Amino acid sequence: MGPAMSNNTTHSVIKAMDGDDLWRDLHDLAVYGRRDDGGVGRLTLDANDVEARIWLIEQGKRLGCTARVDGAANVFLHRPGLEPDLEPVVVGSHLDSQPAGGVYDGAFGVLAGLQMLKALHQCEASTRRPVEVVSWTNEEGVRFAPGTSGSAYFSGARTLEATRALEDDHGVTFGDAVDACLARLDTMDVPRVEFGTPIHAFLEAHIEQGPVLERGGHSAGVVTGIQGVNWYRMTVNGRADHAGTTPRAARADALEAACALTMALREVCRDPDDRVRFTVGRFQVHPGSVNTIPDQVVFTVDLRHPEGATLDALDARFKGLAAEQWAGCHVTLEHLSRIDPVDFPSSVVETMEAAASELNIDAPRLVSGAFHDAIHLAGHCPTGMVFIPCENGVSHHPAENITPRDALAGARLIAATALRLANQ
Amino acid sequence: MGPAMSNNTTHSVIKAMDGDDLWRDLHDLAVYGRRDDGGVGRLTLDANDVEARIWLIEQGKRLGCTARVDGAANVFLHRPGLEPDLEPVVVGSHLDSQPAGGVYDGAFGVLAGLQMLKALHQCEASTRRPVEVVSWTNEEGVRFAPGTSGSAYFSGARTLEATRALEDDHGVTFGDAVDACLARLDTMDVPRVEFGTPIHAFLEAHIEQGPVLERGGHSAGVVTGIQGVNWYRMTVNGRADHAGTTPRAARADALEAACALTMALREVCRDPDDRVRFTVGRFQVHPGSVNTIPDQVVFTVDLRHPEGATLDALDARFKGLAAEQWAGCHVTLEHLSRIDPVDFPSSVVETMEAAASELNIDAPRLVSGAFHDAIHLAGHCPTGMVFIPCENGVSHHPAENITPRDALAGARLIAATALRLANQ
Repeated sequence: MGPAMSNNTTHSVIKAMDGDDLWRDLHDLAVYGRRDDGGVGRLTLDANDVEARIWLIEQGKRLGCTARVDGAANVFLHRPGLEPDLEPVVVGSHLDSQPAGGVYDGAFGVLAGLQMLKALHQCEASTRRPVEVVSWTNEEGVRFAPGTSGSAYFSGARTLEATRALEDDHGVTFGDAVDACLARLDTMDVPRVEFGTPIHAFLEAHIEQGPVLERGGHSAGVVTGIQGVNWYRMTVNGRADHAGTTPRAARADALEAACALTMALREVCRDPDDRVRFTVGRFQVHPGSVNTIPDQVVFTVDLRHPEGATLDALDARFKGLAAEQWAGCHVTLEHLSRIDPVDFPSSVVETMEAAASELNIDAPRLVSGAFHDAIHLAGHCPTGMVFIPCENGVSHHPAENITPRDALAGARLIAATALRLANQ
Repeated sequence: MGPAMSNNTTHSVIKAMDGDDLWRDLHDLAVYGRRDDGGVGRLTLDANDVEARIWLIEQGKRLGCTARVDGAANVFLHRPGLEPDLEPVVVGSHLDSQPAGGVYDGAFGVLAGLQMLKALHQCEASTRRPVEVVSWTNEEGVRFAPGTSGSAYFSGARTLEATRALEDDHGVTFGDAVDACLARLDTMDVPRVEFGTPIHAFLEAHIEQGPVLERGGHSAGVVTGIQGVNWYRMTVNGRADHAGTTPRAARADALEAACALTMALREVCRDPDDRVRFTVGRFQVHPGSVNTIPDQVVFTVDLRHPEGATLDALDARFKGLAAEQWAGCHVTLEHLSRIDPVDFPSSVVETMEAAASELNIDAPRLVSGAFHDAIHLAGHCPTGMVFIPCENGVSHHPAENITPRDALAGARLIAATALRLANQ
């Protein structure tokens, strides 16, 4: 057992993190699933996603790390600490993408961690605790829904057994895809680890996928938690009649009702501080004929807020509005899903803010509007996230973009936080 | 040249019209294209539609009428008048139906005319002018769009040559389908007539396809004209963003904009006498993902009113509203089609009202909200229409229904009007 890393050494490691090298890594990795439009299509456990794992494992091995894999094909690069039996500090995100996704979503968080390992290796620095870089399997949930599954299995939020049977569009099960990947990694002698091993802290860096940091001119932000989300399906039933012959007074127009109802729902969500996220994304009108009054509209609501109490209050208002008659039509409300908000522990948030301050990064607090693997890890260990801005808030699209400067700032912030926690 | 028919004879002919026989004819004809659900699927010039023509021709021949056909396969049953060279009074409608249509739409108008011929034949009565019963080809416009084509060719509103090339879903052209039908009728020695022969008056009886007469407890109504109709397509363009991460202030939500715009359009159409017909029937939301803010909504407007000036005023209001920004989105308005309103001549309307009065039928005036072959004939000769109520205003559906009592009242009203005009 040696001494904890000095502040000077930490400073050298952070300084050794190389923005050009990080940028190169991002674009080297983007070769796996590169699209003609400049984007990336790297679906969970497809050939590119498996090759991306192998690339990552080889990078880790070059840095003297041990690569490990668990039963969900989550990959860990382990760098021992001065006290090797202590719980590790884990940094990472995911390598899978949307079918027409961008270069940075997920990959940035993994490669920021890798850049930290490179700098530790270059500086021959030792942390008190082990540090690990992780890539969680199937965050996006495109090939196998729902997503964030690797982190959910790891942290016990879901069981792997129950979902190995999930099939993709070609009838391949998640179980078969995982087994094929593991068989490939076996040929590289990558040892298997259990789910749910204890972790001292998990840290994830990610693109914001929203406009807040870019609009504020910030290179990074400290994420204090992840919003809760309620999904609803509302079905508005009216009566189909002839557009030319039916007077207004005799109509039960499901589209008129649905428009009025969505506007009323939207109105109760209007908060002065603009924190409620209300979205009607699917809206299907039947029968969809120019000269027939619609008899049915089915629409969804995606409702998010950082506070459970606000979601509960809006839920009650929604139920009240759905119980009313709208333009002579009846409404049924179904609650499709609910995920409670997560608050990251203040210990992690404050450590991250202290690191930002030392790095002279003006990193405001913000709440994540999107899900991340961190939502499951937060139930397993102290967890935190760093966001970096992305151009125009665009993600899940080939046009997704970040700047090398912000990438380095975000990577340094997540690393500085990790090193502080790893020396505790 | 003999004397015009006496009032007594007219009275006898009308009295001889037999409700049971009319009802039997309606259901005998419904054999051609009968569906398991009780409805009728008799598409233009399909085997059933051709057989229905042959059935009609045979009925006419039994009554001593001459069957004739023109180049659009419109069928005429001609009954000579005392002055055979005078222009005839023509009564009719169409025999084709929607794919899942009802028994009465179109067929009622043809068979009401046939019932008049049967009563004239039974009473051995003579009219001053010839009377004819017509079945116009392809009113519905399902197999070959657009509809009301037989009457449009006859009256010169469209040319047959330009549209013989129209193909159905199986690649069969309208021209080929007409030729096959005509070849079949040639084997029955049905003589060919020209388009656009002069007509003294055209009268059409039809189910209302709306709720007004039923709600008022009326057996029939006198149609004073056919509404004009404007069809629009509006495209609302916003920006797709993540539902969880994009604050309200940063959104350009095409669905929010489209709902607000349709409500504003609906509001400017709100008239105290409930004569404007405003319908948004198609409404397509892109990309249609629960957690993505819609970037585009395309919707249609079907706008109808009996007065062209009102349609013009609303058109100007629509263009003004479409030029505004809605929820940060831009709107484009396209004018898909315009059909001007038609007013039937007061001479026909008043003759019909006098006939109704004599028959003790309380027949209020109303405007047709739907198109009919009469819209084209109105440009060719004095034209009028009788409506009868249909159950719950339902048409274009197997559940379409009428009562035998209303059918007889409507048939007697159209016949009494025709006989008055035929004795002019």
